[in-house]
This record gives sequence, structure tokens and C-alpha cells, in this order.
Amino acid sequence: MKNIPKGKYKPYPKIDLPDRTWPDNTITKAPIWCSVDLRDGNQALINPMDMKKKLELFALLLKLGFKEIEVGFPSASKIEFDFLRKLVDDNLIPDDVTIQVLVQAREHLIAKTFEALEGVKKATVHLYNSTSVAQRKIVFSKTQDEIIDLALQGVDLVKKYEANHNGEIFLEYSPESFTGTELDFAARISNAVTARWGINENRKVIINLPATVEMATPNIYADQIEWMSRHLDNRENVIISTHTHNDRGTSIAATELALLAGADRVEGTLLSNGERTGNVDIITLALNMTSQGIDTGLDFSDINEVVRVVETCTELPTHPRHPYVGELVYTAFSGSHQDAINKGLAYQQTKEDPFWEVPYLPIDPADVGRTYESIIRINSQSGKGGVAYILEHNYGYHLPKAMHPEIGRAVQALSDEKGRELEPEEILEVFKNTYFNIKEHISFVDFTLSSDNGKATCSLTYKYNGEVITSEGEGNGPIDACKNALMQKYKNDFTVKSYSEHSCGDKSSAQAVAYIEIQTKEVLSRFGVGIDNDITIASIKAMFCALNRTFD
Amino acid sequence: MKNIPKGKYKPYPKIDLPDRTWPDNTITKAPIWCSVDLRDGNQALINPMDMKKKLELFALLLKLGFKEIEVGFPSASKIEFDFLRKLVDDNLIPDDVTIQVLVQAREHLIAKTFEALEGVKKATVHLYNSTSVAQRKIVFSKTQDEIIDLALQGVDLVKKYEANHNGEIFLEYSPESFTGTELDFAARISNAVTARWGINENRKVIINLPATVEMATPNIYADQIEWMSRHLDNRENVIISTHTHNDRGTSIAATELALLAGADRVEGTLLSNGERTGNVDIITLALNMTSQGIDTGLDFSDINEVVRVVETCTELPTHPRHPYVGELVYTAFSGSHQDAINKGLAYQQTKEDPFWEVPYLPIDPADVGRTYESIIRINSQSGKGGVAYILEHNYGYHLPKAMHPEIGRAVQALSDEKGRELEPEEILEVFKNTYFNIKEHISFVDFTLSSDNGKATCSLTYKYNGEVITSEGEGNGPIDACKNALMQKYKNDFTVKSYSEHSCGDKSSAQAVAYIEIQTKEVLSRFGVGIDNDITIASIKAMFCALNRTFD
Repeated sequence: MKNIPKGKYKPYPKIDLPDRTWPDNTITKAPIWCSVDLRDGNQALINPMDMKKKLELFALLLKLGFKEIEVGFPSASKIEFDFLRKLVDDNLIPDDVTIQVLVQAREHLIAKTFEALEGVKKATVHLYNSTSVAQRKIVFSKTQDEIIDLALQGVDLVKKYEANHNGEIFLEYSPESFTGTELDFAARISNAVTARWGINENRKVIINLPATVEMATPNIYADQIEWMSRHLDNRENVIISTHTHNDRGTSIAATELALLAGADRVEGTLLSNGERTGNVDIITLALNMTSQGIDTGLDFSDINEVVRVVETCTELPTHPRHPYVGELVYTAFSGSHQDAINKGLAYQQTKEDPFWEVPYLPIDPADVGRTYESIIRINSQSGKGGVAYILEHNYGYHLPKAMHPEIGRAVQALSDEKGRELEPEEILEVFKNTYFNIKEHISFVDFTLSSDNGKATCSLTYKYNGEVITSEGEGNGPIDACKNALMQKYKNDFTVKSYSEHSCGDKSSAQAVAYIEIQTKEVLSRFGVGIDNDITIASIKAMFCALNRTFD
Repeated sequence: MKNIPKGKYKPYPKIDLPDRTWPDNTITKAPIWCSVDLRDGNQALINPMDMKKKLELFALLLKLGFKEIEVGFPSASKIEFDFLRKLVDDNLIPDDVTIQVLVQAREHLIAKTFEALEGVKKATVHLYNSTSVAQRKIVFSKTQDEIIDLALQGVDLVKKYEANHNGEIFLEYSPESFTGTELDFAARISNAVTARWGINENRKVIINLPATVEMATPNIYADQIEWMSRHLDNRENVIISTHTHNDRGTSIAATELALLAGADRVEGTLLSNGERTGNVDIITLALNMTSQGIDTGLDFSDINEVVRVVETCTELPTHPRHPYVGELVYTAFSGSHQDAINKGLAYQQTKEDPFWEVPYLPIDPADVGRTYESIIRINSQSGKGGVAYILEHNYGYHLPKAMHPEIGRAVQALSDEKGRELEPEEILEVFKNTYFNIKEHISFVDFTLSSDNGKATCSLTYKYNGEVITSEGEGNGPIDACKNALMQKYKNDFTVKSYSEHSCGDKSSAQAVAYIEIQTKEVLSRFGVGIDNDITIASIKAMFCALNRTFD
């Protein structure tokens, strides 16, 4: 990188924790979830939400199953104050939901906060002050002890107003900019706060340890959480909460490793809204747990609706590759992926064990209301499997496996020529041009059949070289009989290598589709396709189709 | 989640590695970087790149400093074959750059690949086959030994064609779907491949261990890499490569932890292009290292240009919160963040040590060609600090700190009323309406001054209650003298609490801006602002402005 002087950036210091235990742990249960969409998320929007949007998002959060929701900083902004009053006045807060509000340690702000909370049955007052080395030095010019005094003044004020509040008040304290704070100071201030609050088993305190700015690899955050977990007094009555931002793109990882390290609770937003790179995305976190068989208490079974509401409220787009929700994440472009998914889905349907084993799809798209079928895409990279899948799932043609390379090459040629992905309709068009709209060197006209005890006798009429010919044939079935009838006059001998047939469409108007592969001396082999109401005629048409294709 | 049967998803198994060492390590140097933008990235595009786009992206990769570039799967697609030929025929491959091509273990594909490589001086042939439990069972119906045979056939074929190739050939082998493969089998097949190739210190082999699908928390991938690193034969001649996808949103973390665990090389793309959720984003990975003082060998000092080229080539958007590159990631919306950044930037400018200590900005935006100034945004959440910053950096008004709350409240009221962020021009408008476009109860007309040895004598003319008044005054300076002149007739006494002034604009047309804070008995305090070519007149105008504002 140009012009970066030596010493401008330094390695984040290691945590002295050689006996760490978190790397041996596994996440086995979901944390307590707290949505901060309406506070940290909202404050970082280009256009903060108006009342209507806030109400829509709040309703979504309840529907998804959140039991703790930070609704704003009511002492800092009129609209956040009004929103909380609206929730109370319109009875929109269910009894099992705790409302959380952010506030700084100043009396007029805390007084205003309790005014906003009047009538709330369960509320968490989230008190914070910045404790980092840089902010103590550059922003506040305060000593560690002065910073602790500030926090304790806040605790005293919350206790003072709590006394007159009609409802339960929980305390959350954040040493803000925790990742820029010395661990021993973070523990000291947290312990001072919980002691002043009067922590006990009936009066637990949430200690929230924010990665306000993500500053190191995520294992460091886990080390910090495990270190704090060992150094917090009355640990059994402390709820350790994470609040990670995504500056280094590892907020999901940091949160997951922090849960291994002993964190009990997670603050985050839907789709990573929040300051700068955003807060950790709770959708990804929760669905990661779902994919490991953990019941998260959150319901993302209609992910498209979640995305719709969040996008409306935040006016921010969702990236097409966003885990679990992006437009492209249940697609497979490569041919080998498509083949494997195709086989995996078929295998999944036949087996009794529900265990999800489909390659390249980390979860079943149907579990979040998405589909794999509609979004497979065909480009010059995607092989025969994808083409066959489209023809089967969009149009009902079950092509035999041996036929896949033939149609695959035809589709690839068109994709190469166009230099872009093909739409399903274009693939159907290639299929029709390959098997139906072809030059007829030899044309089927009519076929009658009589069967007797395994012996088939037929009369075949066809047109060849401008002449209409009728001839008789016998065989061990209609295809064999037809071929023998044909051989009376048509002298280019061939063998029938394979045959398959299936019905297509619903029962009342069902047609049969037949696929026949023939081989002549001159050409390797050709498939033909025939469609008719009569299964026999369909197979005869398929044979004529294959024959005509040997002329090319 | 609705309708998910028990047993559909199971926990990913733990890795038995109690003596793992990676959590004690730190990343101290950059890995070997390999871009797979033109292969894995390109294959996952809705519209794969045409020749022109491929050439533009290739040129960008060279410019950024990549020395290993996977350019495609030339045996699988005509356009990828043609692109490689174009690179060779037009001499576009620098001597120190290795071209990498992907291929499966089939003779006609390997033959075609070497045809495409003719004339390439340094090439890596990247051979792969899927080794996962699920794919062996569902897709290939092959035993472990049969899968090994397939890989070894591939190695034999590459050796066969290598013999006739004029240039250096390196082997890369990927046990594809490594994260779904038993570790001991992954080691066995990798060791079989390196032995068959004839590994030695002059013939190193890249063993690429892809998280083809991300299936577990990132510490598990690190355990897997450390386990493999211990179980690969001739470890000193093996280059362990990572290739992570982002299905769980932790590809950055998995790669970083894998580097702690001993990986030597990283495959990824710019901005996470690739199948489904994409490959790991090399921009974020590299800038994470830059932020720790590591020289990565990649130059992202003009990040906007990188984003422009990638967006053009992929036709995919970049999320506004994407680490380091998103539109919003160097913004600060909250007032306390803005205050702290403001102070941090000022502190950073004054100190000699280059160490970056600005709160809330993980790196200096200027290092990647971005700015903080132009993107600060003012909404009802952002406090006085942000407003002052805009007025200073966009318009040159250095408001005294005590004045910030006054103008902050005025801006917040407008933002609350509009329910959206304000543009800088709107903030300037609020500033002008607050201090300039106000009702004049008492108007300044003229002021003359004579100074003698610390004693100032003035004659002040002003209009009050429709009357033009001129009076004399003395004081220890012009402001004091003016106030005393005013007090001859104007009976609402006040004190001047603070005064500051600065020049504004360049020297030839410089004006002075003065800020004066006064206090009367009735109101707490009011600021006034005055502008004039004469610094004395500017301060007198500021005093009249403040006086007029006490009438509101």
C-alpha cells in the first residue's frame, strides 16, 4: 500500500490466556437474543425510520420471536420518545417482552428515559460510557477512576428513578469501546457497577461487552469474553452479552466464538444494519444454529417476508450473496454442482431418514420459504445436469441420463455464442429445435399394431424419398416390429440402444413422451423424442426422430 | 422454525485436537494470494464475463499485485479457452505471474488444457475431484480407493502432458468438498497425490483444502487445517492453500484462523464473488492485515477504482456496509461517535507518532482513497459534534465548543421535523437562519475606534426602537468599549461570556468571522455571529446578533 508510514498500524495485543477452553466447546443452545434494530440499526440509517416503519419493524420482531427489543434512545430524540409512548399507549408490548432503552449517565437524560418508560412492565435500562484507552485520553481527558465514577453516578440515578417506576427494571451496563479497553479495567468498572446496583440471583445484571469497533481476529474476542467471564464477580448472576460490529467482516464468527467462550446473550440486527459496517446479522447467526439442529426460538421460515420488511424500513438493499437470504445463494452455476444437487435432491426424497445430505446446499431452501428449482441458471459453465434439471422441473421432460451430454452440448453452444446465461425458455427452445423442429428425411405417417402372446405384428406407413410406403413387420414388441417393418425397404440398418417413456401433464390430458437412442454404422448414436396420446405411437415417433437426426 | 423434523440437521462433528496450537498464534505475514475471480467468480455470474471484461479484470489483478491468477477452466468452455490463448498471444502475462487453470481427471480435458497452456511460462494445473462422504455415496457410488485412483489417474495424465510442455508446470490438488470429507481420508488422498507427482523441494505441490460449503464454526476449519498440516507427508514441500466459501458468513474468519493454523496460501476473489454466497473476499482479508501493520503485497490504495472495475465486470452491486469499501463504512451517524472522531482526527494531526488512534475508524480512510469529511451525515441521532464538523469542514466556520449545543438543537429540531437525514446545505441554512436571517430589534450602523496604550475609545451608532442613536464608550478593548457605549442608552444589561474569531476564505478575499456569547438576566446565554472584512466590526456585529437573539 502506498504512503502508509511505518508504525501507523500495529498488531492488536494478544490475550494472555494459555489455558483457554473455548476452542474445545460447541454451541449447543441458542443465546438470549436482543434486537437492536430500532436503536443501533435505526441510528445508522440515511433516513431514520418514521413512526409507521418503526411500528412495522417492531411487529416483525415480535412475530419472529424476539423477547428483548431495544427500541431507542428516547431521551436523545423526540421521535424515539414518541415511539415508545405509542407502544405503551396502544398496548403493543406483549407481557413476555422486555423493552430496552439506551441512555448515558446524566440526570436529565435518565429522568426523560423514565418518563418515556412509564407504564412499561418489563424494561431494561441500558447504561453506557466509553472506557477505551483512546477515548479516555483523546475525548474525555479522564482517569480510570473518573470513568468509573461516571458509570456509578449513572447506576445511582437509575436506582433513584427505579424506585418510583411501576414495573420491573433490569440494568444493562456497557463499557463502550470494550475492544479498545484494557481487560482488567473493563472487569473493574463492570464489577463496580454490579456491586453498586446490588446484584443477586433476583437482581441479575447484563454486562454487555461490545466490539464497538472490530479490531482483531475473532479468536481474540473469544479470549476476551472467556477472560471476562473468569474475572466478573457474581458470575452466576451476570448475563454476559455480546454486541459485535463487522469492521473486519468477522462479526458472525466473533459472536459464535464468544458463545463458545461463555457469552449468554447476543445483541444484533436483521441483515447487519448498524453503524458503519453494521451490527452482527442475527438472521445468519440463528440460521447457522438451525443448520446444526439447534432450536433458536426465532422463526425465519418465511425469509422473503423478513427481507421485504427490513428493506422497506431501512431503505437499504440486501446483497445477492448474503448468507441464507440473498437472491443467488440457493443457485448452482457449475455443472458438477448441479449434477450433485440433482442427485442429492432425488436421494433425499427416497430415503426415510430426514437428515439433510444434499451437496452444495447447506440447508433445505424450503425451510426458509425458498426454492432451488426456480433459480438454477444455465450458462456456458453449467453442464448437462443443470439443463436436464430445468427440462424436468420446469417442463416435465425426464430425459434419460445417457441423453444429457447430447442436449448439454447443444445448450452450451448457444450459451457460448450468446456469451450469457440462458433463460429456461431458451433451454426449452434448444430442446425443441434439437428434437422436434428438424428436417424430416423420413416421415412417420401411420402405425397399427396387433399383439398376441408376446408377438407383435404391425403395419407401418411412412414417407421416404418422396414416396409413401406401407410395410408389415413382426417382433417381440411394437418397437422391434416397427423396426423390422421399416427394414423391408429402408436399408440403413441401426440398432435400438435404449428406450424410456413417461407420461406428461395431468391425467385427463396426459400425453406420453418417449426417448429412443439408436445407433447406425456411420454415427455414434442419436437420441430421438416422440410425443403422443398413445404410448406406442410416441415411441415410434421417437424412433423416426432419432433416425432423422442421424442424417445431420 | 416451522416444520423442520427432528434429525434433519445435526451438529458438525468436533475435531479431536486437544493440543491445538493455533489459538496462541498471530498472523505476522501475508499468505501467497491467488485470485480465482476469473474462474470460481466468473462461473457464478448471472452473465459470465465476455472477453473485454475478462481482460479488464485481469489487468486490475496485475495492477493490484496478484502473482497467481486462476484464469478459468479452459477445457470446459470455449470462451475460457479463447481467453487464455488471448493472454498468451498478446503477451499479457508478466514473467513473475503464474497462470492457474482448473481441470478434472479426464484425458480429453487435460489434453485440451495443455493445448490452452501452450506458450505459458509458469502454469499451475489445478486438479480436483470430490472426496466428501455425501458425494462418494450419492453422486459417484465409489469407494475411497476408487476416488484415490481417480485422482492418481489425473496426476499421471498431468505428468504425461507436462513432459511435452515448454514451461514450468506446478501441480495443485483439491480434495473438493474437503469440509464434508473425513480428515484421515483427505490426508490419505493428498499424500497419495504428492507421492505420485514426485514431491521434493524443487517440486512443491499445492494442497488446496476447500470449504466448498461452509459447514461449521470457523474454529473447526482451523482445527482441520492444523490437523492436516500435521498429517501431510513432506510438509515442508507442501503449500497448504485455503479456499473458503461464505455460506455461514464466516469465510473471512475461517481463512484468518486457518492462517493461524499453518495455511500458506489463500484463494479468493475481490468482493466475494463466487458460487452461492461467494468465495472469501480478498480485499477485506488483506486490509484486515494492513490494519495490523502487515505488508500484504497487494495495493488497495484506490479502492473506489477497484470497486468500479469489479462491479462493471460482475454486474453485481457492492453492499453499502461492505467492510472497507461500502458507501457507508466511513460514516458516523451517532453524535457521540462524531464527537470522538472529530477529536481523534484533530489529535492525530497534532501528534508526531503516526500510530492511528482515531476512535470509530478502524483505518484511515485516506489510505484507501476514501474520505471521512464528505460522508458524515446528520440525522436526528447525530449530535452537535457532527453539525460543527460539517460547518467547519464544508463551510469554514470554526464554532467555539460552547456554541455546539445551541446549533445542534436547532439542526435536530429540523431533522426530527423532516424525519430524515439533512444535507450539508440544509445545515448551513439552519445556521444562517439561526444567526443571520433574524429579526433585528436593535441594529448595528457604524463603529469607530481609537486605541491608546490598552485603552479603547469608540463611537457607536445603532438603531433601536426606530431611533438612530450614537454614543461614546471606553473600555479595555473594542468589545468592552462598544458595550459601554451601548449601555449609555440601552438599559438591558448583559455580560460578554466568551469571544472567538477567525479568518475565513483565502487571503486576498479573507473575511473575519466572530462569535460572541452574551448573558442577560432573563436568558441563560445566547451566541451571536458576525462577519466583516474588519475583525473589529465582525465582533461588534456578533454582539448585536447575540443581543437580538435574546429577544426570542
